[in-house]
Amino acid sequence: MTGFDELRALMGDRFTTAQALREQHAQSETHVLAGLPDAVAFPETTAEVSAILRVAHANRIPVVGWGAGTSLEGHALALRGGITVNFARMDQVLEVRPEDMLARVQPGITREALNTELRATGLFFPVDPGANASLGGMAATRASGTTAVRYGTMRDAVLALEVVLADGTVIRTGSAAPKSAAGYDLTGLMVGSEGTLGLITELTLRLQGQPEAISAAVCAFPTMSEAVDCVIETIQSGKPMARIEFLDPSAVAACNAYSGQSLTEAPYLLVEFHGSAAGVAEQAERFGDIADGHHCSGFRWAERAEDRNALWKMRHNAYPACIASRPGATAIVTDVCVPISRLAEAVEETRADIAASSIPGPILGHVGDGNFHAILLIERGNAAEATEAQRLAARMAERALRLGGTVTGEHGIGIGKLPYMQAEHGAGWAVMGAVKRALDPLNILNPGKLVPQ
Amino acid sequence: MTGFDELRALMGDRFTTAQALREQHAQSETHVLAGLPDAVAFPETTAEVSAILRVAHANRIPVVGWGAGTSLEGHALALRGGITVNFARMDQVLEVRPEDMLARVQPGITREALNTELRATGLFFPVDPGANASLGGMAATRASGTTAVRYGTMRDAVLALEVVLADGTVIRTGSAAPKSAAGYDLTGLMVGSEGTLGLITELTLRLQGQPEAISAAVCAFPTMSEAVDCVIETIQSGKPMARIEFLDPSAVAACNAYSGQSLTEAPYLLVEFHGSAAGVAEQAERFGDIADGHHCSGFRWAERAEDRNALWKMRHNAYPACIASRPGATAIVTDVCVPISRLAEAVEETRADIAASSIPGPILGHVGDGNFHAILLIERGNAAEATEAQRLAARMAERALRLGGTVTGEHGIGIGKLPYMQAEHGAGWAVMGAVKRALDPLNILNPGKLVPQ
Repeated sequence: MTGFDELRALMGDRFTTAQALREQHAQSETHVLAGLPDAVAFPETTAEVSAILRVAHANRIPVVGWGAGTSLEGHALALRGGITVNFARMDQVLEVRPEDMLARVQPGITREALNTELRATGLFFPVDPGANASLGGMAATRASGTTAVRYGTMRDAVLALEVVLADGTVIRTGSAAPKSAAGYDLTGLMVGSEGTLGLITELTLRLQGQPEAISAAVCAFPTMSEAVDCVIETIQSGKPMARIEFLDPSAVAACNAYSGQSLTEAPYLLVEFHGSAAGVAEQAERFGDIADGHHCSGFRWAERAEDRNALWKMRHNAYPACIASRPGATAIVTDVCVPISRLAEAVEETRADIAASSIPGPILGHVGDGNFHAILLIERGNAAEATEAQRLAARMAERALRLGGTVTGEHGIGIGKLPYMQAEHGAGWAVMGAVKRALDPLNILNPGKLVPQ
Repeated sequence: MTGFDELRALMGDRFTTAQALREQHAQSETHVLAGLPDAVAFPETTAEVSAILRVAHANRIPVVGWGAGTSLEGHALALRGGITVNFARMDQVLEVRPEDMLARVQPGITREALNTELRATGLFFPVDPGANASLGGMAATRASGTTAVRYGTMRDAVLALEVVLADGTVIRTGSAAPKSAAGYDLTGLMVGSEGTLGLITELTLRLQGQPEAISAAVCAFPTMSEAVDCVIETIQSGKPMARIEFLDPSAVAACNAYSGQSLTEAPYLLVEFHGSAAGVAEQAERFGDIADGHHCSGFRWAERAEDRNALWKMRHNAYPACIASRPGATAIVTDVCVPISRLAEAVEETRADIAASSIPGPILGHVGDGNFHAILLIERGNAAEATEAQRLAARMAERALRLGGTVTGEHGIGIGKLPYMQAEHGAGWAVMGAVKRALDPLNILNPGKLVPQ
């Protein structure tokens, strides 16, 4: 392909057209061989990323960024071929500034690796999507996870970026100042843009102080509504929960089978508080009082790390437990988010819909955010079940929109959610298209994704 | 002007070309008669705003939004004439959803009016820029203020918007779901766009629970560095301060003279904690310990409202006290923001620069955000002093950039900060220009502002 020789000359064997590597980058957690790149590049510097885009721009070659490959929606699949830019070799912490509570990192570093490096600083990076994703990928998809209720999403955690634009121009967005009113929020525009506006080559991330004390609690509720009302009341009262997770009775059943426990098969809440020792004790007690008012049962709480881990074991193992609950099954993981006042309704309708279908689908949720996932378990290779799962997922997306929510709380659009963008955004989707054309008129950055095609 | 007859027919006397009203809209807090609109419109509905823009677009007439007129940077001045759209008649609370902790409001409502309406709900809207600004204006300028350290800025407080685009198209950005990963963050793009991308006709705002208890403390420090180090240590320890304000010795002197107090003329911190009764007591105590470690003196704290108000009187009166400290003076209020690790340096250099100048300039700051203001006091009509103040302000902006910060933490760009945009954003400024051209190709929305001209 024109331009490849130039990149080979520049990058040596870090620019490759080897079939095996191309195929490795045509797989994601949920989509297999959906898009095969023509080449894979492993840049080590921003200058190399800029060179790749300069060459790609001159030759109209599509370019797709690749982090840790943990996307559930096929974000990084090269639907129109071209070059996949794998950031594995740009995985350094460039600077930690404890006084400013921030770190400058390269996009290829994973959140676990970053937190390992931060361990001695008294600080940590709070966004936790479960998977050990790369920070560049997490920013590009506006990831969040279990701690968003307290610490926010990647929208909140990214303070500044270095981005290489479609023509190779390098820009810096934001600064190390905690806030600014100086112009369009380009940082916020890039976060969640799924590689369609630029490639992120550096991130300045907000860190948090490691909490002095952590306490955790679990309890069961007679109904989903009672559980959600308990959460609403807790949030309204200003209790700063660090996590608040929900498991539906099917998920609890799966966890019982997986871990040999015998918990009541009821809606469960798992909550975690961060703060001072006295503070978390007070918070747990208050939460217990509120939960009592909503007829909770089996309330347990723990402060010591090993006790907390035992309590939260159910949540930590929920995904493998759900998968294991149907031998040989593979999962389609859905992701919707609704206003919290509509959450009980959204979950109950979804549960009923799944119950009426031919496949099982335990539900887990970040209940403080109104965000939940059904783990739809289908027999590998069973086309009828795959179709059934797609129908359930489609109805979840439509339900979320009907209830005033969004078709994706944290997994992003990728391939799977593109069909809902018009319904969710109306005329706003065309505005996204206009922004895309302004920044990438040749449509070389992750073409086929996010904007109207 | 072509198009005016159509708008007069539509809006009656709510569309006016009366000289007195035009002149009222050519004044701002700091810039007088800098831009005179040809007409002023007072829409009552989104449909009317859409009609104004449709007509303006067809006739290439500039359109500028106007909230409460409290901008310090001349954002709403009609530099190229055209129509000023005054949102005073769109000032309703449309909906309060306590369970979702949000309110839908029209852009003309002021923050004080909103909080009055919320009083009975147990919720409040936390962003407090001091002035009783309109919510539309606060969103358009990405305002913040004393509570940003705890509750964030308008970037964080705005969940969704209704916006009328340059050609009259109405879009909705975001939703009532607490988070979303569905595409470009158009809400975030509009917040801080200063009316150059669209006119905001509705806002969905995040509310906060009214704190059970509030405690406040004040104390003096031997140096600015000790005061800042105290703040850094407090933030790192995870204490959730609701406000943390700084006054320099000149500001304290002005407050002494204004209120007949006799406080030590030293750097002062004023801090406020929100939480449970036990929580705020603990926080105040811990803060006192940290402050002791930084050689604070005169530490006082208070929990009862009247005691808190007495403690904070110095801060509440700081602006009038500064103005009164030089009889007959008018103020040029600067606004820069730096990484907190550079704050002491930035303030001390600024103080020395002001001390070496011919005019006084007390300094106030939102120290938790690295954001501070010098109140440069010049004799009304004294051109030499005005020039001196402009030079001091210019050096503050350059200093902020040199220290890795931004030329405006919360007041916005308007007219005054436009000369620094290239220096602050480099190639990123051209990207803002590209976004502007994509959404407003005829450049009718607040022309002459924010982007490269």
